[in-house]
Amino acid sequence: MAILVVGTIGLDTVETPFGRVEEVLGGSASYFSLAASLYVPVQLVSIAGTDLSAEHLQLFRSRGIDLAGLSIVEGRTFRWAGRYSYDLNSRETLETQLNVLTQFHPQLPESYRSARYVFLANIDPELQLAVLEQVERPALVLLDSMNFWIEGKRQALDEVIGRVDIVLMNDGEVRQYCHTHSIVRAAGEVLSVGMRRNGKPWGLIVKKGENGAVLFTREGYFFAPAYPLENVKDPTGAGDSFAGGFLGYLARSAPDGNFSLPMLKRAVIHGTVVASYTVEDFSVERLRTLTLADIEIRYEQVREYTHFA
Amino acid sequence: MAILVVGTIGLDTVETPFGRVEEVLGGSASYFSLAASLYVPVQLVSIAGTDLSAEHLQLFRSRGIDLAGLSIVEGRTFRWAGRYSYDLNSRETLETQLNVLTQFHPQLPESYRSARYVFLANIDPELQLAVLEQVERPALVLLDSMNFWIEGKRQALDEVIGRVDIVLMNDGEVRQYCHTHSIVRAAGEVLSVGMRRNGKPWGLIVKKGENGAVLFTREGYFFAPAYPLENVKDPTGAGDSFAGGFLGYLARSAPDGNFSLPMLKRAVIHGTVVASYTVEDFSVERLRTLTLADIEIRYEQVREYTHFA
Repeated sequence: MAILVVGTIGLDTVETPFGRVEEVLGGSASYFSLAASLYVPVQLVSIAGTDLSAEHLQLFRSRGIDLAGLSIVEGRTFRWAGRYSYDLNSRETLETQLNVLTQFHPQLPESYRSARYVFLANIDPELQLAVLEQVERPALVLLDSMNFWIEGKRQALDEVIGRVDIVLMNDGEVRQYCHTHSIVRAAGEVLSVGMRRNGKPWGLIVKKGENGAVLFTREGYFFAPAYPLENVKDPTGAGDSFAGGFLGYLARSAPDGNFSLPMLKRAVIHGTVVASYTVEDFSVERLRTLTLADIEIRYEQVREYTHFA
Repeated sequence: MAILVVGTIGLDTVETPFGRVEEVLGGSASYFSLAASLYVPVQLVSIAGTDLSAEHLQLFRSRGIDLAGLSIVEGRTFRWAGRYSYDLNSRETLETQLNVLTQFHPQLPESYRSARYVFLANIDPELQLAVLEQVERPALVLLDSMNFWIEGKRQALDEVIGRVDIVLMNDGEVRQYCHTHSIVRAAGEVLSVGMRRNGKPWGLIVKKGENGAVLFTREGYFFAPAYPLENVKDPTGAGDSFAGGFLGYLARSAPDGNFSLPMLKRAVIHGTVVASYTVEDFSVERLRTLTLADIEIRYEQVREYTHFA
């Protein structure tokens, strides 16, 4: 059973203390689908301009990523340029060119509508809602967002949060969304949004960069450390790679959508491990060659690093 | 078998977003010994002025803390005043009065010299060395330090680091000590200090506040999350409480000093759990009533929050 992802395909120009790359493949849907396709087939919903190179499309196809939902329209592909600080913990956006993204009105091919696992990557929450409307009965919908929508489209964001199963945010976004410094209290608030109406969301994953990730549910917590790395080259795409490893592992383990809490915990570890590989190189470079065997090695190491008898 | 601690006893004035306390019991040796004495007897080496109240001395005695190594001298006890930021992640020192601390020349009572577990809390590294000289053959020496000594007494600090078993620093201090942002690389550097001469230290524990703690050894890592708290009142003493839980658990589990790696991992969790209780109230308030049964409850919860099958 395939995973459906809706998000961006972009051409990124990125500067970190360890180098600079220009107009390389980026965007949430790119990172996610290259990560998740290590586990299961991926159905991609996105938009790109006619300037997206055939080599990039070929990369997706070579990984069995279904491009029936990708619109290629006249014009330029979405572009983003950013620069990371010395410690890689903060970044400055130098330029955002939406380009063809302004024409994005996701229409799901018929074959996509029965998807059991869905990732609504970081795009306008109104588009995320439009996609949700077209999916029949997903078992798990994961939602990503960002400060831009928290500030500018709060109502639509609240609406979509109340209709998904798990929300993915970084620690700064969770604090901003809930106007509180305490992540624990903020998590409780996110989980209560829409709860009265829909009983959703039931989970929140807080991404904490080099400090790992935490899954909050009404039943408890699960902490995953970041895999310890000596050399991080480019943090771009870490969050979407996390989502790809997380949903990919779940969809592979429970294709029918009947996943368990132990599976969810393992999925969080898979997410952090896939992200740890992504950040070791620029763009999607490391995801091109990554294998499930590589992932398994770090997964076992993380178990050693966290378990106590 | 008792744990020996050398450190400060102070009277703290602390302001956090949740309140303010004046001239309450503080200091590294106070937090450590009240925490560690939950597990095993503690031998305290410190200095205080004649203004330290009998009530505070009685608190130590009520916990079986040996005060034979505590000098009470004419004058005023060490005082510290500080204010925490809104998010509790940074603090500003408003005032430090060394007072009788300037006369501190630790002399160990004969009964202290055979200690198997030693905590050199954050004091001048030359005093830490002087204490080490007086201990016969400790099984494990844990060292704490701070930015002040990294800047001002680098050579003495390097010397003492090369003579202890485990170094305890927060993430900022580790980065400062090694002039690198990467905690993983910095940890490797700390472990190599003095290595050629003494084969020490073999462990580094990096305290990361709300992000928990990491034990680095040459063989690998161990990650412990911070116990998730909705309400933190006062972070003062968290690090020394961590040290107390950590060494206390080890000394109780391996009184002969023959501890194992699994024991070390459990000790790290005990450290984070004890610290989680300390920060829920001002000063040493929570440590007055804390029990091993309380600690066991959160310990089991942390296991649930971190293990995956």
